[in-house]
Amino acid sequence: MKVRVYVSLKNGVLDPQGRAIHHAIEGLGFSGVSDVRAGRLIELEVDETVSDAALEEMAQKLLANLVIENYRIERV
Amino acid sequence: MKVRVYVSLKNGVLDPQGRAIHHAIEGLGFSGVSDVRAGRLIELEVDETVSDAALEEMAQKLLANLVIENYRIERV
Repeated sequence: MKVRVYVSLKNGVLDPQGRAIHHAIEGLGFSGVSDVRAGRLIELEVDETVSDAALEEMAQKLLANLVIENYRIERV
Repeated sequence: MKVRVYVSLKNGVLDPQGRAIHHAIEGLGFSGVSDVRAGRLIELEVDETVSDAALEEMAQKLLANLVIENYRIERV
C-alpha cells in the first residue's frame, strides 16, 4: 500500500526556494502567478499492518519539522 | 486560486534522499515500510486566467526535470 506525506512550510515562514522559483517563473515571461511555496512529497510503500498512529509518528519525528512545517498524510 | 504541482522521481532513478529517509525510519524502530521515495511539492497561487497549458509549460520548463522526474498538476 502506498502512503503519501505532503510537507509544506507554515504560513509566515520565509521560503527562499519558493521565492527563487517565483522569480524564475516571472523571468520566463509567465504572468498571473502571485505566490510560490516549495514543499516536499514523501511516498512510502508500507504494509497494510502499519497503523495511522505509526504514520503520524513517522511524520512528526522524522519527515516534518513541526516548528516551521505542516504535514498531511494520505493513503492511496 | 491555488495550484499544486507534485514532482516525483521516475521509477528506476536512484533516490539517495529516499534511501536515507528509509534508513532513518528503520533506525527509529518502525517496521513495515518497504520503500521510500522523496519528491517535491510546489504550491502556486495563480489568477483564474492562467491556463492549463501555461501551467504545463511551467512544470515542463522549470519545475520538473523530465529526464528523471514525473509531475502532476492539481487545481485546488
